[in-house]
Amino acid sequence: MEQEQLRHWIEVAAGRAEADAVLKNAGYVNVFSGEVLHGDIAIADGRVVGIGTYRGRVEYNLTGRVVCPGFVDAHIHLESSLAAPAAFVRATLRHGTAAVVADPHEIANVLGTGGIEYMLQATEGLPMDVYFMLPSCVPATPLDEAGAVLDAADIAPFYEHPRVLGLAEMMNAFGVVQADEAVLAKLAGARGRIDGHAPGLSGPALCACTAAGIASDHECSTLDEALEKLRRGQYILIREGTAARNLAALAPLLTPQYAHRCAFCTDDKHPSDLLELGHMDYICRRAVQDFGVDPVLAVRCASLSAAQYFGLRHTGAVAPGYWADLAVVDNLQDFRVEQVFRRGRLLFDHGQLADFPAPKPDAALEARARDTFRLPPLTAADFQARKPLGVLGLVPGEIITTDNGMAAAADPDRDILKIAVIERHRGTGHIGLGYVQGYGLRRGAVATSVAHDSHNLIVVGAGDEEMAFAANQVITRRGGIVVADGGAVTGAVTLELAGLMSAQPLEALNAALEAAKAAAYAQGVCRGIDPFMTLSFLSLPVIPQLRVTTRGVLDAARQAYL
Amino acid sequence: MEQEQLRHWIEVAAGRAEADAVLKNAGYVNVFSGEVLHGDIAIADGRVVGIGTYRGRVEYNLTGRVVCPGFVDAHIHLESSLAAPAAFVRATLRHGTAAVVADPHEIANVLGTGGIEYMLQATEGLPMDVYFMLPSCVPATPLDEAGAVLDAADIAPFYEHPRVLGLAEMMNAFGVVQADEAVLAKLAGARGRIDGHAPGLSGPALCACTAAGIASDHECSTLDEALEKLRRGQYILIREGTAARNLAALAPLLTPQYAHRCAFCTDDKHPSDLLELGHMDYICRRAVQDFGVDPVLAVRCASLSAAQYFGLRHTGAVAPGYWADLAVVDNLQDFRVEQVFRRGRLLFDHGQLADFPAPKPDAALEARARDTFRLPPLTAADFQARKPLGVLGLVPGEIITTDNGMAAAADPDRDILKIAVIERHRGTGHIGLGYVQGYGLRRGAVATSVAHDSHNLIVVGAGDEEMAFAANQVITRRGGIVVADGGAVTGAVTLELAGLMSAQPLEALNAALEAAKAAAYAQGVCRGIDPFMTLSFLSLPVIPQLRVTTRGVLDAARQAYL
Repeated sequence: MEQEQLRHWIEVAAGRAEADAVLKNAGYVNVFSGEVLHGDIAIADGRVVGIGTYRGRVEYNLTGRVVCPGFVDAHIHLESSLAAPAAFVRATLRHGTAAVVADPHEIANVLGTGGIEYMLQATEGLPMDVYFMLPSCVPATPLDEAGAVLDAADIAPFYEHPRVLGLAEMMNAFGVVQADEAVLAKLAGARGRIDGHAPGLSGPALCACTAAGIASDHECSTLDEALEKLRRGQYILIREGTAARNLAALAPLLTPQYAHRCAFCTDDKHPSDLLELGHMDYICRRAVQDFGVDPVLAVRCASLSAAQYFGLRHTGAVAPGYWADLAVVDNLQDFRVEQVFRRGRLLFDHGQLADFPAPKPDAALEARARDTFRLPPLTAADFQARKPLGVLGLVPGEIITTDNGMAAAADPDRDILKIAVIERHRGTGHIGLGYVQGYGLRRGAVATSVAHDSHNLIVVGAGDEEMAFAANQVITRRGGIVVADGGAVTGAVTLELAGLMSAQPLEALNAALEAAKAAAYAQGVCRGIDPFMTLSFLSLPVIPQLRVTTRGVLDAARQAYL
Repeated sequence: MEQEQLRHWIEVAAGRAEADAVLKNAGYVNVFSGEVLHGDIAIADGRVVGIGTYRGRVEYNLTGRVVCPGFVDAHIHLESSLAAPAAFVRATLRHGTAAVVADPHEIANVLGTGGIEYMLQATEGLPMDVYFMLPSCVPATPLDEAGAVLDAADIAPFYEHPRVLGLAEMMNAFGVVQADEAVLAKLAGARGRIDGHAPGLSGPALCACTAAGIASDHECSTLDEALEKLRRGQYILIREGTAARNLAALAPLLTPQYAHRCAFCTDDKHPSDLLELGHMDYICRRAVQDFGVDPVLAVRCASLSAAQYFGLRHTGAVAPGYWADLAVVDNLQDFRVEQVFRRGRLLFDHGQLADFPAPKPDAALEARARDTFRLPPLTAADFQARKPLGVLGLVPGEIITTDNGMAAAADPDRDILKIAVIERHRGTGHIGLGYVQGYGLRRGAVATSVAHDSHNLIVVGAGDEEMAFAANQVITRRGGIVVADGGAVTGAVTLELAGLMSAQPLEALNAALEAAKAAAYAQGVCRGIDPFMTLSFLSLPVIPQLRVTTRGVLDAARQAYL
């Protein structure tokens, strides 16, 4: 810290120098004392430096409003928003988000350490603190054909980066409990925090994970599960995102007894969800409105708690010495964010966002991120099945599937469609084929390069020609989602960054996504399912019963191909 | 962290390998959930690794007992115990103390950076985690003639030490608020936490200090003061020591609303207080018995809270991954510590302490620490006053003094005694003289080398010969407290380490101290005052009204010599 900087903060705090800005007449949430208090909030060089009576070059009259510390998302995969980091920040800054702790797991599955480096560079200097945890499980399983295999030595150099806070969610709890060599190397090499991901883990296995240093969990879906983990010392990151929502189950933790060990996170936020509901402001709103949580406690879990967990000593409070990252809300029931200050500058004001440039990663890195399809154009012959193959049965509202037997050909009349997973990272030529039932598509094909966790190219269709066409359209775009019918594109979302994200504004991206969804539904996809998300999970080899990977139909329970 | 170490912890936690030790049938304090829970506590290689059902090579049946995390003192000057670090640890380990955060301010005033180095070496490998904050104010004021002047550059190298956690209490709040250059350099150069010390500070001045990074305060004496500091973001270190006791005033903070920002500390603990009352166990006991505090919350403030404040991630809880530093108490009302585990080993068991060697600092450093009297023997002539001098009036129970006018000679019948402060660090020959009223000594003299903060040699006496004799006795001993009468020593405590501490066991030290006190009282010292502590504060040049330093009688309010 520069001495002259310190001097200026002191001069302003002591009242001898004018503040850059003063927020007047508002209430503010004091996350330390659990109160809403009043006082001028004086800002100098990006920090709050005083609460009391101050004058400033700019003064904001905030009568009737409440100033909250900028919100912190304790665990998110930015890639799930489909938006490039700058676009994500443009969409969430207006919701009062000041900091996120991101796990670049998806892009690392495509680009390896290049993906981590890309995200670091693409977030440098953004008007939001984007911190990272280093992906611990790339690929997610040995059955995945991802773009990279990251071991402990690969990720180790990134701990030097000032915005890297630790090792991201250790999904391989089984490997931890079994003391798997490669897993131990990652745990032993970790610096900072180690996040957990262990749905349902309990008893000695939970003890093994906490003894090994895993300090948080965001997968709790019942109060009992969360209480056991909290009692064993893990921080409970209460997740309320798009795909998984645990606030209803875990809201009873939001009392003074437990809240000091809880923080909020989203894990995944999809475009429409971000645009329509919001981000951490939405979690606060729901906690207060639906579950009667003390609003000040909710704000604390949405700000200071995560900062404390990660050791961020200037984040998460309205107090001298803390970053002047502030969210001004209408009241502590509705949490409508009216203004957002970033380092003391008013960046969002009643619907208007001050624009900022997107950071520019190195040209070579940018080029590499936009060139992740290492495969030739496909033809109908690539999708030809020489023998009967397993049929994945979809279950509405779930990501599990049923084993629906075998089929010899697609038959849209019986809702049997062909599905293919095409390896796209290394040009292996691997194409896994199978069938899927319950998707509902009557004609054409749907293809996507968002396919957890290895993000190969998935396509499902009524016929081989249609499948080749849709897949080639994704390849031509260097990533994205395509709905096709009769040799024409009926809906498309281009995701040119690693096949996962787009640099366009989230509103435009979402419009394209909704239009593509409409096209998919128009072509018969069942209304009860998300046409693209459903496909995205069909290649994740850890979820029962059947999955399809680049090598064919897999029985996930037996971890064996049919 | 070694991978093989990690593997073993996991093997034991998972139940595949036997624990080193298992604590069975006890309740334990869960500082995360605020409960007393039950379960076997399994220990492996110094850590708690499992809570549940375990078997171990050694099993302890603790039926009816409660296991607490080992206690943490968030702020203490070890020197105040008069005991060398190993002796201090022998005395406090039995009270369940697992860690202390010490400010070696006193010894640094004598030995400069050598004092810091001495304390680091003298605590290396002790069965207690002794962390340090680096002294921020040596000397305490420009009027002090201390053994060293430490600036920012002097202390900077010590931040590299793994047991150094930051910058110790910044007592010069005035300098911070005034943005004093040397003070700013220390703040700007600090790494880790910066502790505060600012009694009564509020308003813009408090904001200036918190904006400057001062993150705690242990000087709050009223609830309002503590609440204001807590609201501004400072951690409140609730002090209950020997000289200052704030628990009664601050106990209302010990609720779930505020306790997450509070920790316990002692600041100073004198020998008899440590031996008779205890340490952090005593604070818990008082909090519960006298102020009705929830015992689990009290334990949290005595353990996890300080660990969190200082970022010690394996300290302060009974949970997998935490150090197996445990205090077994009879119950959560009386907090009688029956057994103490350190890194899983039972070191204290129903009155019996397993002995351990005292660390041996480098020979040269040890020699230097035992050679801090740089002055020739004194004679009566050194105490001869050539003109009338100011009279310090003692106030029973306070450390302030009154201005009792001038005197030309000692007159025990009127309770006017001569007092001298003799510079002992650099051989300057400076001797400041004055008079003191209200001490009560009828004959002989009392001398001490514990004299805040510069620890020169103070002597008070009925006559110049008596003063020279007592002072020379301290010099001969290379430090300590001497009561003399008619050319004979009537009571003495040898403090051979920097003139501040003794390596002998605290019990023996305390016996000598009590005997010396009895001698002082027998020679007339007023019963209402501590004969030695009272003297120790008379040279502290910041406390009104009159003080005496190596340069004579000072009006502290005007900061000018009479």
